[in-house]
Amino acid sequence: MTPDSDIFETRGPLLIRGVRYNDCTVDVVVGDDGLIAAIGENAGRNHEYDHEIDGQGRVFLPGLVNTHTHAAMTLLRGYADDMLLQPWLAERIWPLEAHLTADDVYWGTRLACLEMISSGTVGFNDMYFFMESAARAVDEAGMRAQLAYGFIDLFDDEKREHECRATEELADSVARMANPRISTAVGPHAVYTVSPGGLRWCAEFAADRKLGVHVHLAETETEVADAVRTSGRRPAALLDEAGLLGPRTVAAHGCWLDDAECRLVAARGATVSHNPASNMKLATGRAMPYPVLRQAGARVALGTDGTASNNSLDLFAEMKTAALLQKFAWNDPTVLPAPEALLLAAGNAHVALGWGGGRLEAGAPADLVLVDTRTPCNTPLHSTVSNAVYACTGAAVTTTLCAGRVLMHERVVPGADEVLSGAAKAARALVARAAGTP
Amino acid sequence: MTPDSDIFETRGPLLIRGVRYNDCTVDVVVGDDGLIAAIGENAGRNHEYDHEIDGQGRVFLPGLVNTHTHAAMTLLRGYADDMLLQPWLAERIWPLEAHLTADDVYWGTRLACLEMISSGTVGFNDMYFFMESAARAVDEAGMRAQLAYGFIDLFDDEKREHECRATEELADSVARMANPRISTAVGPHAVYTVSPGGLRWCAEFAADRKLGVHVHLAETETEVADAVRTSGRRPAALLDEAGLLGPRTVAAHGCWLDDAECRLVAARGATVSHNPASNMKLATGRAMPYPVLRQAGARVALGTDGTASNNSLDLFAEMKTAALLQKFAWNDPTVLPAPEALLLAAGNAHVALGWGGGRLEAGAPADLVLVDTRTPCNTPLHSTVSNAVYACTGAAVTTTLCAGRVLMHERVVPGADEVLSGAAKAARALVARAAGTP
Repeated sequence: MTPDSDIFETRGPLLIRGVRYNDCTVDVVVGDDGLIAAIGENAGRNHEYDHEIDGQGRVFLPGLVNTHTHAAMTLLRGYADDMLLQPWLAERIWPLEAHLTADDVYWGTRLACLEMISSGTVGFNDMYFFMESAARAVDEAGMRAQLAYGFIDLFDDEKREHECRATEELADSVARMANPRISTAVGPHAVYTVSPGGLRWCAEFAADRKLGVHVHLAETETEVADAVRTSGRRPAALLDEAGLLGPRTVAAHGCWLDDAECRLVAARGATVSHNPASNMKLATGRAMPYPVLRQAGARVALGTDGTASNNSLDLFAEMKTAALLQKFAWNDPTVLPAPEALLLAAGNAHVALGWGGGRLEAGAPADLVLVDTRTPCNTPLHSTVSNAVYACTGAAVTTTLCAGRVLMHERVVPGADEVLSGAAKAARALVARAAGTP
Repeated sequence: MTPDSDIFETRGPLLIRGVRYNDCTVDVVVGDDGLIAAIGENAGRNHEYDHEIDGQGRVFLPGLVNTHTHAAMTLLRGYADDMLLQPWLAERIWPLEAHLTADDVYWGTRLACLEMISSGTVGFNDMYFFMESAARAVDEAGMRAQLAYGFIDLFDDEKREHECRATEELADSVARMANPRISTAVGPHAVYTVSPGGLRWCAEFAADRKLGVHVHLAETETEVADAVRTSGRRPAALLDEAGLLGPRTVAAHGCWLDDAECRLVAARGATVSHNPASNMKLATGRAMPYPVLRQAGARVALGTDGTASNNSLDLFAEMKTAALLQKFAWNDPTVLPAPEALLLAAGNAHVALGWGGGRLEAGAPADLVLVDTRTPCNTPLHSTVSNAVYACTGAAVTTTLCAGRVLMHERVVPGADEVLSGAAKAARALVARAAGTP
């Protein structure tokens, strides 16, 4: 089905007519300001609009948000799997990353954006390098992103200065873009890769510039043991001492958080990004303690991590993996029920990144997706939320809107072929360079 | 894209031209006997054919096989989730199943076949009731299936007689169909639901009629504890004593097999069907001990279980879940690497069910699928197998052949709309009947 190509260009008001929302059928009016203007039965009658999307046979869901990824690692998808962590990194991933160029990061991020738009994700929280190229890719793709330069000083003063300058340059560069969908986070990689001085600088810079913080936290048992051995304190306490735990902090993984750390994260209003597929694939040895974090009142969101350790960016699949892993790990099938999985992937993530979406109501950003009901995964339709979490994947998404702009309709994303061929070419050239062949 | 509709009717030779197979490009010739006639570079030159499928931009994989499911439970998809096992069964699943009719099982199985064909599965090993209706659905859908009536005597002599007759009737009925793609298995439900006499009858009947055996084994800790308490023996030993463990046995779950049971299953040549998503969703508390089974030389295959406890029949997703769960559960990222996950889902399953597929070579049944490479999940294409297991879902399958017959091409399955509406209608009526509303 080839849609009216105008739909991708329109900035005027848009009507989604007769779409299923929970057990009702509603109209959704999207204003030219990118916000939901109205939602309700026959809401279309009282509003002007330039374009109309037929919502029949579609379920209406909030657009999903990926709160932890390294988008450009799509170029490494399937390059190395099923290895122990250290040889995987040292022998396969790092040697390839050493040859990455700004152009590679552009193409890898474009590919990631295409994959995310195609699977109902409207925005993401990214950490990598050559982030100016990532910003350009996001700008062109039409998504939202919070972009962090991965700050790694390895406890070296000279490196720290370099990382500070790189962080400042990204913040300045993104500010100059003046794209309301794109912002910067400060990205101290983790307590085992960034010196206490580096962590403090990051906290001060983030406070000074009013930026988010994106950090890895308690991913492995080794990280915790090393922190305790060298500093006498666990990783969350180290982040907190540096001033890095706050309402604008997204801490990825959290597998090895103990109960006190869960309460600390909750008390600071920080968000833990759960990355179940990556944690399982790399065998972190423990699942993020969701029941403890929930009990403590911490905000939890969902992420895929990079595609080298997942190897997909499909948050529908990740919702299911999260629900399954939490039930299995804590031996209780009532843990992380489907509505909570959707909350992690949408509502909580929008709050974490300050985007205001994830609510299907007038005044909220029109960050939303339509999911096909005329598929096996949505047949029967006893529960739209259960089907979204447990039965469907992102492939059931037909239409993706971000800030009121149509990024995909009837599964067509404009420019997809160019992105696929550009990224494939960049990946082949990268492997050839790393192998020393011209 | 609407394909030449003739492709679904043809029984003559078929050429798949220029498809990617590992790192080569090959032609695949499918004979009018439903077998692969030739496979190789330019193999098409030396063969006559009536139809041609363009393999450019497609990866060639064996058709997948689901070795444990209850297909008609698609009608219950999303009806109840996230509950403790006993209330889930007693308050939600069983009351609905009590109202199931033969017609419901027909529509539920048609829906399951549609979902499986759409996600690259060519055959399945099923256990449920009203299985004559399931056989009719499979016959019409064009798939392979081994069908078992779920034999449950609850240690009651009268019930046992009834279950024996039902089992005989299914075997007779399927034999009369004389469809080479459809066979019967004897289906003793489990050691906690079937009396020792019932188990022995099943073993004798299977041996007498040369049928497969389909049984649940060591799914929960309670099952093992109860067996030990009441009989002094663990479940695998009980099956073995009854004569039910042999090369044609598929035992589902196996979560709580101990090392000796793993060696026993291997020694008997039986197959364990791993159902990771269901085990995680129901929180069985332990993952099937794949490393021990592998070490013992046991054959392991893959299954989804019914959609009430998964809630999908997509074996691509299940391959990933299996690889992730095994790494996580045994704390080792090298366990169940991608090529082994594919072996579980295809090669081992074909052997378990005696279907002879799962091999991409001349003389093997033409049970095969084409997967789109022009998608984010297959970009880049560093490894076709890694992408199939970790990045793609069944939605990337474009074409499915079973026994040489094209069941899906360019994602079109003939009659899909009728199946979706028929199954949706049956599910709605079932819920209304169970609620006592007309």
